[in-house]
Amino acid sequence: MSRKSKGRMSVAPLGAALILASGVWGAALAQQAAPEVKSHTTSPVPPYEPSLNVMPQPEQPGQKPGDPKLTPEEFAAANKIFFERCAGCHGVLRKGATGKPLTTDLTKKLGYDYLRDFITYGSPAGMPNWGTSGELTPPQVDIMARYLLNEPATPPEFGLKEMKDSWKVIIPVAERPTKKMNDIDLDNIFSVTLRDAGEVALIDGNSKKIITRVKTGYAVHISRMSESGRYIYVIGRDAKVSLIDLWAPTPNIVAEIKIGTEGRSVDVSKFKGFEDKLAIAGAYWPPQFVIMDGPTLEPLKIVSTRGMTYDTQEYHPEPRVAAIFASQYAPEWYLNIKERGEILAVDYSDLKALKTRSIDAERFLHDGGFDRTGRYLFSAANARNAIAIVDTKEGKLIDVIKSGGDKPHPGRGANIVHPKFGPVWVTSHLGDETVSFIGADPEHHPKEAFKVVQTVQGQGGGSLFVKSHPKSEHLYVDTPLNPDADIASSVAVFKISDLAQDKPKYTVLPIGEWSGISAGQRRVVEGEFNKAGDEIWFSLWNSKSQESAIVVVDDKTLKLKSVIKDPALITPTGKFNAYNTRKDIY
Amino acid sequence: MSRKSKGRMSVAPLGAALILASGVWGAALAQQAAPEVKSHTTSPVPPYEPSLNVMPQPEQPGQKPGDPKLTPEEFAAANKIFFERCAGCHGVLRKGATGKPLTTDLTKKLGYDYLRDFITYGSPAGMPNWGTSGELTPPQVDIMARYLLNEPATPPEFGLKEMKDSWKVIIPVAERPTKKMNDIDLDNIFSVTLRDAGEVALIDGNSKKIITRVKTGYAVHISRMSESGRYIYVIGRDAKVSLIDLWAPTPNIVAEIKIGTEGRSVDVSKFKGFEDKLAIAGAYWPPQFVIMDGPTLEPLKIVSTRGMTYDTQEYHPEPRVAAIFASQYAPEWYLNIKERGEILAVDYSDLKALKTRSIDAERFLHDGGFDRTGRYLFSAANARNAIAIVDTKEGKLIDVIKSGGDKPHPGRGANIVHPKFGPVWVTSHLGDETVSFIGADPEHHPKEAFKVVQTVQGQGGGSLFVKSHPKSEHLYVDTPLNPDADIASSVAVFKISDLAQDKPKYTVLPIGEWSGISAGQRRVVEGEFNKAGDEIWFSLWNSKSQESAIVVVDDKTLKLKSVIKDPALITPTGKFNAYNTRKDIY
Repeated sequence: MSRKSKGRMSVAPLGAALILASGVWGAALAQQAAPEVKSHTTSPVPPYEPSLNVMPQPEQPGQKPGDPKLTPEEFAAANKIFFERCAGCHGVLRKGATGKPLTTDLTKKLGYDYLRDFITYGSPAGMPNWGTSGELTPPQVDIMARYLLNEPATPPEFGLKEMKDSWKVIIPVAERPTKKMNDIDLDNIFSVTLRDAGEVALIDGNSKKIITRVKTGYAVHISRMSESGRYIYVIGRDAKVSLIDLWAPTPNIVAEIKIGTEGRSVDVSKFKGFEDKLAIAGAYWPPQFVIMDGPTLEPLKIVSTRGMTYDTQEYHPEPRVAAIFASQYAPEWYLNIKERGEILAVDYSDLKALKTRSIDAERFLHDGGFDRTGRYLFSAANARNAIAIVDTKEGKLIDVIKSGGDKPHPGRGANIVHPKFGPVWVTSHLGDETVSFIGADPEHHPKEAFKVVQTVQGQGGGSLFVKSHPKSEHLYVDTPLNPDADIASSVAVFKISDLAQDKPKYTVLPIGEWSGISAGQRRVVEGEFNKAGDEIWFSLWNSKSQESAIVVVDDKTLKLKSVIKDPALITPTGKFNAYNTRKDIY
Repeated sequence: MSRKSKGRMSVAPLGAALILASGVWGAALAQQAAPEVKSHTTSPVPPYEPSLNVMPQPEQPGQKPGDPKLTPEEFAAANKIFFERCAGCHGVLRKGATGKPLTTDLTKKLGYDYLRDFITYGSPAGMPNWGTSGELTPPQVDIMARYLLNEPATPPEFGLKEMKDSWKVIIPVAERPTKKMNDIDLDNIFSVTLRDAGEVALIDGNSKKIITRVKTGYAVHISRMSESGRYIYVIGRDAKVSLIDLWAPTPNIVAEIKIGTEGRSVDVSKFKGFEDKLAIAGAYWPPQFVIMDGPTLEPLKIVSTRGMTYDTQEYHPEPRVAAIFASQYAPEWYLNIKERGEILAVDYSDLKALKTRSIDAERFLHDGGFDRTGRYLFSAANARNAIAIVDTKEGKLIDVIKSGGDKPHPGRGANIVHPKFGPVWVTSHLGDETVSFIGADPEHHPKEAFKVVQTVQGQGGGSLFVKSHPKSEHLYVDTPLNPDADIASSVAVFKISDLAQDKPKYTVLPIGEWSGISAGQRRVVEGEFNKAGDEIWFSLWNSKSQESAIVVVDDKTLKLKSVIKDPALITPTGKFNAYNTRKDIY
């Protein structure tokens, strides 16, 4: 286990943007993209793509004497790069979150040379080496350094008019099938993000064949299933929401809408009486969420999340919606409002008199998941090394606790029955090798409830996801962002019964080797169980021009079961099993 | 009754800022201020007063080629004038509300000459004649016209730090008396705003003598009494909240705080168990409210009101808190969020998990009041000629109805028992002579409930307040903003029993004549009953350098009872009888 120390990450002074999930797909891609890069003599800036909806500004706002100038074309190109690569961690307005603030009072102190070099070489703590990886050309690094010395452009607002302009009902509800028109085992479909293709692949969990691929937004962040299981909602980083109808002869997109210029989260109404009725999507920019009609995506109610931080009570112009969770106890969604450090409970039973409850938690809230009963919600405030725990039955904060490691990044976390402490919820960490177990059964284990009952050491830092299943005896821990290639391309597995030991050992699954692919960084990310809970799927995620794969492992034997390969399987990242996602099984 | 048509107001194209209460004291003062004006050869711009907390900007934000320039001194002076005279109607960010928008896309089309002339001469619909009234000198009009062609300066945020920096507990709770230390009849005190003196006078309702005057914020907008009757909370237009302890040997200010740079509303917690515990104040800038500890004004929870308009669902950067009402049925305040058109119900029982309910109503919400039972809340959306009605027992919107006139301005309105329709709530209008009666007794008069059951004609437009009392047989209607001096200086009184007639007549009380003051515009404003309900007080409001007075009328006989004069009684406007205000009797 000496390898774990190799992946340990420490925090560097500026730009030490530990790449959490908000920006993680982009950043990790950058780190592995070197082989893709072409000559530096190509056009210094890519053409501006207005489809990304980041408006170029005819003049640089806030230009002051002495600020380095950019041409309008350079400004537009820098804006586009900042949106695609930087805003996830640093914020559209550069106020900082997972990444450090990059406001001009700070960047001007550091100066052009420092910025250029930092962008070029990155930092060991997570700021990608955009230059030496080849992801950005030297002229691009140059315009980014100059761009950062100018005031950020505030992107446009995106209200009801803009949403309605973007909204398309491709197949009206009346023209959709009234029963399932295919013989697919819908509960065992995997909705797989093909990040750089701007697509989602639906893969049959039984045959392991691609059923279909659908065009979605850019870099789909998550898939969520409607309560009936008929519909899949996906959201791209460009805040485009697509609705897939699984009852069609071949599942297809029946509606789509853009809800902003950047987004991460989508969910559905799950409370009794509201099944399949409503959906909600959260934006990073503008900082807002929108409640939509479930079957059509018609935007019904937009709510801004701008407001005060919970602790210092100062106004924040960009409090982003990081994650959304549907309650089973009330017609409510819980929204993690990242920069405010507040969990917002939104009651969707009356949109004309919208009830919300703004629960003080901790900055900067990111992702999280439920315990196995679906009652207790664990959310990571990763920049503060904390987990906020909410009782969704009582609708109340239970506690905010330290996670026991550096920068918890649970995804949705994992639920296991610990041999000593009973039901626990699990998170790994981005910043170190710690895997933390938090008691989640106050009824039978009141002493351990909502406390970190144990921490164990995994392969190293750079972990994004842990995963288990009620039928599994294992806990899987990925490490795709670990700088060590062996660690990044393999997965640690703990036997749950071993957790009674003081220093439990783990088995390393060499997923990269098993894939049969030898080229590329072969980052292995996001285990996802099938419905039966007897196999777990991992993405082997290479760059756009390289071969990727999905590697299926037999959970009982921990042996390779099959490798899914297809020329269309470009940059697979998140995978969402329809049944497990719908039932919050992880 | 031919005189009524004289006061009829119509809407002019731009700047037709019908002067509602947000800006009404300032605007009306301007219209009457001519005698005060000194030579135009005095300094063209007044010195900048940093105490007003509108930060001068070292450079003009958004300066574009061709924009007229202002020196930093001119910009600071224009900013100050805009804050004091214009922002109330047009908004700090000039997005418009009661007044028209003055964003640069509009002002540039109109051009410098148009703006200069409009500021100089005003419009018959309510834009004050700042130039010809002498309130602004020609050089001041010139800088204002140039200022409007430049982008507005966004004033600074005002968070917990700024509030705490401004917060003073002058007499700690432990050092305050534990029982009433004077023999004043506290229930019959009148808290009287001395607008231009930046003071509040406490007047003994029995002896009609000034008990004391206390230094407050600029142009105190309202006074509100704590549930026990011990404390008075006042808020100035500069968002300074002052807390007066009536138990002191001589009532005095025991705490103060600034909650922003512009404010209008303050209220207290009235629900059982929370009496005298909490206070809330609403700001115009920044758009936010703050919940404070009642006896000390310690700021506890700040909430931004920035968000989407209820109807077009577009982001508004400046949704102001126009009025606040305390529920007796729940630990809730109802806040009129002007530009959003939403009534926000704020539950103050748990500040760490603040519950709010955002009730869609109508733009642009202004003031309002309860029916006599305190259950039904009537709020004017005056720019849309509408009244939003909320059932505070059920916590629900009942309806939004047309008021029957042009720009309802109820103040808190008046409650009478109509001879035909039973209990009704009454509002007059700024834009015309209409007085509207709205059914408020669904139990015994279900057919008439929450409908305009009758409209009658008063003296003319320019009315701000109606008033009655459970013991009174009269309804009083002021018209201080009517351009006709006779109408502005008198009050119409309807005998309630006459309202059964088709076109009931009213009696005119020549309050101006009765005051014995002959100089000045002698605007008569805001009738306020004493606790016994047998006399009603009116402010005779002249300019700062002229004599003003309070005129007391015997309600039974409608005869002059007494005139309160005092050299210290400078620009009296709002008057708040302690008992009636506390018990919502109007």
